Amino acid sequence: HRNYATSMSNKKLLFRQLFEKESSTYTYLLADVSHRDRPALLIDPVDKTADRDLTLAKELGLKLIYAINTHVHADHVTGTGLIKTKVPGVKSVISKASDAKADLQIDAGDRIYFGDLFLEVRATPGHTQGCVTYVTGDGLDQPQPRMAFTGDALLIRGCGRTDFQGGSSDQLYQSVHSQIFTLPKDTLIYPAHDYRGFTVSSVEEEMLYNPRLTKDEETFKSIMANLNLQYPKMIDIAVPANMVCGLQDVSAKPAEAFSS
Amino acid sequence: HRNYATSMSNKKLLFRQLFEKESSTYTYLLADVSHRDRPALLIDPVDKTADRDLTLAKELGLKLIYAINTHVHADHVTGTGLIKTKVPGVKSVISKASDAKADLQIDAGDRIYFGDLFLEVRATPGHTQGCVTYVTGDGLDQPQPRMAFTGDALLIRGCGRTDFQGGSSDQLYQSVHSQIFTLPKDTLIYPAHDYRGFTVSSVEEEMLYNPRLTKDEETFKSIMANLNLQYPKMIDIAVPANMVCGLQDVSAKPAEAFSS
Ligand SMILES: [Fe+2]
Ligand SMILES: [Fe+2]
Repeated sequence: HRNYATSMSNKKLLFRQLFEKESSTYTYLLADVSHRDRPALLIDPVDKTADRDLTLAKELGLKLIYAINTHVHADHVTGTGLIKTKVPGVKSVISKASDAKADLQIDAGDRIYFGDLFLEVRATPGHTQGCVTYVTGDGLDQPQPRMAFTGDALLIRGCGRTDFQGGSSDQLYQSVHSQIFTLPKDTLIYPAHDYRGFTVSSVEEEMLYNPRLTKDEETFKSIMANLNLQYPKMIDIAVPANMVCGLQDVSAKPAEAFSS
Repeated sequence: HRNYATSMSNKKLLFRQLFEKESSTYTYLLADVSHRDRPALLIDPVDKTADRDLTLAKELGLKLIYAINTHVHADHVTGTGLIKTKVPGVKSVISKASDAKADLQIDAGDRIYFGDLFLEVRATPGHTQGCVTYVTGDGLDQPQPRMAFTGDALLIRGCGRTDFQGGSSDQLYQSVHSQIFTLPKDTLIYPAHDYRGFTVSSVEEEMLYNPRLTKDEETFKSIMANLNLQYPKMIDIAVPANMVCGLQDVSAKPAEAFSS
């Protein structure tokens, strides 16, 4: 075991993890509080908890500039559309590969800056075709250890299902191994969900203890093919909403826009 | 707003926040990973998630030495007794003022060392007569900012009820103002529960935005007297169990000891 601490040491970063109980979703608030504007972003906000998140951002004196999704969620409606109607100027962000609408459609290698800090985009398809992982920047002026927001590509001791939304167990295996397990071992893993009360893990831990992704590719594919999971109960509501929610028209009536 | 980051920067501390969904309880795992033994402690473990916590501690290569409670919980059964039956050598800890049984009964001013790190005990009665807040040490070799594990004395934008277990709204008001709000403003607040998905706050934030404890004492007492809360549904099971759970006899049969 390496002697690293599981905590960040960057004086610029304000970081909050937030939980939505019904769908067990984690939303993340990050801000550069060394910058005059205190620019902030939310990763994977949920519609039901958007007000909570906006109140917190306001109390902390932050200026929210981005509302970002790791992928098109099938289990809850994203808060990005609602947030855009409530905070003018916020830009929604999702990957180009997801085919979903948003103000900014990002690609692997892109950087999303908030103040002097940034997130780097890594393509991690397999749970859905458009899944990306956002990783805090490399460099001494960026948070140490690095933080990876993995969506459903890599969960703590688990991973997202691969049987809907253009999913592929081949791809997921390659994505995690090539894009996440190649990060420094002390990189903190912050997933989109946890169902057992874990809040964070690390690359090292998942490389040692993830019950699926420590296996060889054939075993992994066989595990994923035999999960026998139920049809996702929110998928028919959530996916259509989330495909367009990032581009909800601020000029539309909020109630109407929100029911789209 | 001060420009501090809400994250720790101590290279010795390994820190994990864990959540038990049914009672919305937070359990905290802290360890000194710079020390050869990697000594660790758990604050407010829950019986139902004790196995999860022990597995995690084992995977992280930690040596659990203390299982600590902030107070006699009324909403869940503590995991301390169960943990003692599973990991010989672990010592249970609770305040002397709680009148509950445990291996170590601590008092205000006591220090609980794990490796080179320690928790300082502050008496914060009012939710129960024996509530304490555990605060990480003061000093450059200790985590910065400091972290306060407040139990139910101070919750994020709230506080525990004061109508059972020797509770007193007078006392709670004095406790929070004299023992918690006097800590450095950037001290992180880690409560025993959160019901809305918040994971952490700070002294500064609660001094500005806590809807109860920002009020004057008379208003606070009137708020607490008029909450009209239901009788705590677990109290008749949890309190008797928690009064003795810290001293569960390792030599007794686990099932029998646990049902005591
Ligand atoms: Fe998903
Ligand atoms: Fe309590």
